[in-house]
Amino acid sequence: MSEQKRKRGGRRARQTSEADNPPPVIPYITRTIPEYELLGEEGLTLIEKNADLILSETGIDFHYAPAIELFREAGADISGDRVRFPAGMCRKIIRDSAPALFEQKARNPARNVLIGGRHTVFAPVYGPPFIRDLDKGRRYATIEDFRNIVKLTYQLPALHHSGGTVCEPTDLPVNKRHFDMVYSHIKYSDKPFMGSVTHPDRAEDTVAMCKILFGEQFVDDNTVVVNLINANSPMTYDETMLGAAQVYARNNQASIISPFILAGAMSPVTATGTLTQILAEAMAGIAFTQLVRRGAPVIFGTFASSISMQSGAPTFGTPEPSLVLNGAASLARRLGVPFRSGGSLCGSKVPDAQAAYESANTLLPTVTAGVNFVLHAAGWLEGGLASSYEKLIMDADQLGMMQTFAQGFDLSENGQAMDAIREVGPGVHFLGCQHTQNNFKTAFYRSSIADNNSFEQWQSEGSQDAVQRANVIWKKMLAEYTPPPIDQATDEALNEFMAKRKAEFADSNY
Amino acid sequence: MSEQKRKRGGRRARQTSEADNPPPVIPYITRTIPEYELLGEEGLTLIEKNADLILSETGIDFHYAPAIELFREAGADISGDRVRFPAGMCRKIIRDSAPALFEQKARNPARNVLIGGRHTVFAPVYGPPFIRDLDKGRRYATIEDFRNIVKLTYQLPALHHSGGTVCEPTDLPVNKRHFDMVYSHIKYSDKPFMGSVTHPDRAEDTVAMCKILFGEQFVDDNTVVVNLINANSPMTYDETMLGAAQVYARNNQASIISPFILAGAMSPVTATGTLTQILAEAMAGIAFTQLVRRGAPVIFGTFASSISMQSGAPTFGTPEPSLVLNGAASLARRLGVPFRSGGSLCGSKVPDAQAAYESANTLLPTVTAGVNFVLHAAGWLEGGLASSYEKLIMDADQLGMMQTFAQGFDLSENGQAMDAIREVGPGVHFLGCQHTQNNFKTAFYRSSIADNNSFEQWQSEGSQDAVQRANVIWKKMLAEYTPPPIDQATDEALNEFMAKRKAEFADSNY
Repeated sequence: MSEQKRKRGGRRARQTSEADNPPPVIPYITRTIPEYELLGEEGLTLIEKNADLILSETGIDFHYAPAIELFREAGADISGDRVRFPAGMCRKIIRDSAPALFEQKARNPARNVLIGGRHTVFAPVYGPPFIRDLDKGRRYATIEDFRNIVKLTYQLPALHHSGGTVCEPTDLPVNKRHFDMVYSHIKYSDKPFMGSVTHPDRAEDTVAMCKILFGEQFVDDNTVVVNLINANSPMTYDETMLGAAQVYARNNQASIISPFILAGAMSPVTATGTLTQILAEAMAGIAFTQLVRRGAPVIFGTFASSISMQSGAPTFGTPEPSLVLNGAASLARRLGVPFRSGGSLCGSKVPDAQAAYESANTLLPTVTAGVNFVLHAAGWLEGGLASSYEKLIMDADQLGMMQTFAQGFDLSENGQAMDAIREVGPGVHFLGCQHTQNNFKTAFYRSSIADNNSFEQWQSEGSQDAVQRANVIWKKMLAEYTPPPIDQATDEALNEFMAKRKAEFADSNY
Repeated sequence: MSEQKRKRGGRRARQTSEADNPPPVIPYITRTIPEYELLGEEGLTLIEKNADLILSETGIDFHYAPAIELFREAGADISGDRVRFPAGMCRKIIRDSAPALFEQKARNPARNVLIGGRHTVFAPVYGPPFIRDLDKGRRYATIEDFRNIVKLTYQLPALHHSGGTVCEPTDLPVNKRHFDMVYSHIKYSDKPFMGSVTHPDRAEDTVAMCKILFGEQFVDDNTVVVNLINANSPMTYDETMLGAAQVYARNNQASIISPFILAGAMSPVTATGTLTQILAEAMAGIAFTQLVRRGAPVIFGTFASSISMQSGAPTFGTPEPSLVLNGAASLARRLGVPFRSGGSLCGSKVPDAQAAYESANTLLPTVTAGVNFVLHAAGWLEGGLASSYEKLIMDADQLGMMQTFAQGFDLSENGQAMDAIREVGPGVHFLGCQHTQNNFKTAFYRSSIADNNSFEQWQSEGSQDAVQRANVIWKKMLAEYTPPPIDQATDEALNEFMAKRKAEFADSNY
């Protein structure tokens, strides 16, 4: 053991500082554990048949003339903004051209992610207008908070993706903040990121910035940005989201077509009914992207939680959303497209036990269902109203555990450890045996935040809870942050583009 | 809605008080979701083959002469206390006689539990010498704490079983506290319970008290007590535990034969190696019970966590124990006996986010693996050193969620909810539709402790975290506790028996 300690001291001594080394690269998870399937063939077929009935009988509203035209040409039955699809039409369009798997390129190629198949990509929280930390409590988020979350996400190896609106920079005008958000992802991280969807023009700006970063031809040929397109459930898509989806599909960039559902309000009060509606909505939206451009990368998304039938408030980490996410993952696999859902969702206002139970009850089903792209994987608090510095750190530790869990059993000779059992025998401990010595450095997931010390030691160190420990960790990380290098000419070109565009129209807050 | 409210008010008005009604009975979970199996046929066969090698080559130490004699007669190879088993011997003994499913009777027949098959039974924390609550912090537990935990467990419908040593009543002498523990379970609850295993005489006392409660013949014919028999891993059983197991098996009462393993110390540092050792140890111990009495009810148990390879401290809720518990559940099913593992385990000193993440990361895999008997399902804190009033309440809420989750999808017409979708259509909410009105009372799990209100409402109610809310709940429950009725003659006979026995020998603390 003393030999080991010396070695570790030596290695540490050779590093002038932790900050000089870029964060370790584990670009994404490749699961070797099987998917957990709660619905059998019979249930899945029934839901698919019912979803087809919704598409053909009830139909979906597309409040966007170009979408109506595309669907009319493709043979749908149009009545105003209502589109009804002949049986099997959406499924056929999707199966004919949507890729089952695609790669999103990062500016650091070592961080490219594979989306689909047995792969799982974790991205941070998306969308909150508020931010919370232990020192300053809850407040409106600013661009400084946004940059901080991007920097922390860059440093956390269990997060594979820089995400998108990690919090709303509310100190910037609504119609211009997308520039600063996209730029922050590019500048302060080298992980793949998401683009703006709040207006087709902002989607165009995102694509333009990607072209400056990656080159025009590269963007035509590759997926460099993934974008969150929510359906306006029930059974409605609005103009803004469809306009943005159209821009991205046309440019060969990826959309996550996500029914956003609080079951009981935007869908029926049953898990089966909710799942059926999700499938119908998602198929219609995904089909739209394929009509815009055959083969455009697209992800079957769903954000489904339920509401309290007493107060109407959204609830998270409860059993029904867990069922829905599992079933939707199975349906996406049968459709043959990558799937997005889950995360570390919770309704709690603070990163307490409620937050953790609810997050774990969302995250573990996310991994076992085989979700491919996981938004809100870390940092989500208060039903998505607040991003949390401490919860980002705590959740990321959980994501690291999922990475280990997803590898399943090691059935190699070393994994079987029969030599160790033979060597040690009854009544003796395994701490000193050769097999333990050979494996102890990599054995068992090592939590960055859990306190497993004795009660007395924990007490002597100030009786800190998990949030207090997380608070120390994120501050240390920000203090040690070093940005990934970026080509100076590219950086200048991005800043020039933003300055020029920002000057072209007045600030506004819508 | 007003009609509903009037009806509910009317029903409540007819009740003179909540406390007059016994807690609702959901005797156990019958899962309709499939078991999640992480190991395929190949892996399971490999592990079974390796476990057979351990049994035949390395062997197991049984420090108990009667066990050695039974194994010698059955054809094992004996060398001192070391027992080596010819290939397949243990498996054959077990398959020939151990029941795959049995019923444990409670004094209230409505609370009988089925142990095995697709059933899951939740029992509270077992073993902690300390107790913690928000008001008084951490301290040695007393018989008053013990009674309180029994009373709360009785009132919590998601706990199906009263458990055993819910905390150590350290204010009573070690050699007599089993009387008061068994009596408390009988007196303050009518759920099934566990007996004493710390000495064969105390097991005899437990059986004697059961005979007073249920009648002599009834106890001969039925399982009325379940008992936790830990192996002294690696590959060792000690005299005390085997003596107790022998008493219970002889009396047709159930033993949980549980290798107790902190992987890395008491087993190899790999999940596969640990699982192999568990199977070997469990099979040897289970075979012992069947040699004592063919057909005696027995449960394949395992408590497996890992240690921090840095500090040697036990860790909980990490990925490796989750793998082990899943694999062990599969192996127990193949062996054809009920399985015990999992719970709401954590290493945290307080019921904070760490405690909740770790607990959820143990509990959900427990349910999806198909565990039949879940000890430590609620109230466990600090690696099992402390029982927690608040965590008991918080965990029980999670157990309720598991009950819902385990029911899976409702594929009935009502579950499909196609009428609702047809009625509501695009762009309208589901809150007022007929289907929602028909189902809103039973739709969605309703947490007893999660706060899903708005931030402003939460703030105006004192910004309480989950622990503070749990503190209010358990105090209210204890204040409203009404004991289940018990036959007065039986009660007197139990007290007489205890007084007589306690007078027979001096107090001691070992």
